[in-house]
Amino acid sequence: MINYPNKKKDEEFISTKPSFKTNSKGMIFEEEINVANSFYIREDIAYIYKKPTPIKILNTKAYTEGFQKKILINKAVFEKKSTTDYNGIYKGKYIDFEAKETKYKSFNIKSNLHVHQKEHLKNVRRHGGIAFLIVKFLFCNRVFIIDIADLELENSLIKFEYFLDKGIEVYQKRTLHLNYIDAVDQLLLKENNE
Amino acid sequence: MINYPNKKKDEEFISTKPSFKTNSKGMIFEEEINVANSFYIREDIAYIYKKPTPIKILNTKAYTEGFQKKILINKAVFEKKSTTDYNGIYKGKYIDFEAKETKYKSFNIKSNLHVHQKEHLKNVRRHGGIAFLIVKFLFCNRVFIIDIADLELENSLIKFEYFLDKGIEVYQKRTLHLNYIDAVDQLLLKENNE
Repeated sequence: MINYPNKKKDEEFISTKPSFKTNSKGMIFEEEINVANSFYIREDIAYIYKKPTPIKILNTKAYTEGFQKKILINKAVFEKKSTTDYNGIYKGKYIDFEAKETKYKSFNIKSNLHVHQKEHLKNVRRHGGIAFLIVKFLFCNRVFIIDIADLELENSLIKFEYFLDKGIEVYQKRTLHLNYIDAVDQLLLKENNE
Repeated sequence: MINYPNKKKDEEFISTKPSFKTNSKGMIFEEEINVANSFYIREDIAYIYKKPTPIKILNTKAYTEGFQKKILINKAVFEKKSTTDYNGIYKGKYIDFEAKETKYKSFNIKSNLHVHQKEHLKNVRRHGGIAFLIVKFLFCNRVFIIDIADLELENSLIKFEYFLDKGIEVYQKRTLHLNYIDAVDQLLLKENNE
């Protein structure tokens, strides 16, 4: 049994494959994205992976299982500084994004995005990559991607209406729960028309 | 004190920031690449990161340090299936590579590259990304990058001469120990001329 502080009770039973994070917010949403990514890899559409959580190992122990030498990590901590959740390749381009979900009718940049994550996404965008946030609003169960260039990073609170205006909605398909790559296509079209 | 099975004695004193891997081969070489990547980020040339080693957490314990809630991982194992060592963005393109060093005068593909890593690099290349191996030959202290498209993945043993012929040598600069991005530029030039 693993204890997640601040973990919501209902998530504990729904999520079958927990992706161990210090903050468990967005865990089911992440699973949805992982499922989509597996589908894209299988269909040779895009190669996008969840970055492993950076962990600092403090102690290990060697042991043998059958004839195999193995290593058990018996002391480690989560490293604070990670970049973003996902990156990969789509249509030759570098793609990088952060996935978040919120129960509010606005998105709090300050509490959802670290300074180094903002910088990272801005750098990717400036270097010609695809950089965005994918945000799930739980109150209406709608998902939007929003280009980092369209995100007023100085504003702390971004209203839902702003996502309706500037974001691209992710619609659900039969084959796939969260087909976000269609929204990425629209984002690329928008970029090319600018 | 962390015990690395099979760890070479001299590495223990040279490497200041060990990157915890089950196989410690190539640890110093990886450090050289990390230093180069930090330089590229600082100079706004490329954004390339070492992927964290995927770890499967089996047990955690919550504790408090001062007023801060923290999590200690007290049971975890290395996950076998990782993709490659590094990825990121360079000149708008997705870049992905694996770093290896060898003491031999040939490079053993089979023992150095997992099947899924080969597949991953081939997929990246096919989708228009930059995908290569960066190999350090310890016997002569020379480093080469080799396009995944130029690597005969079916052959198990690739001779050093093949790297001299098809690879691009990484020369060392004063500002930087391992300036591999110059070699990547040559690789891109070669690609465009094909």
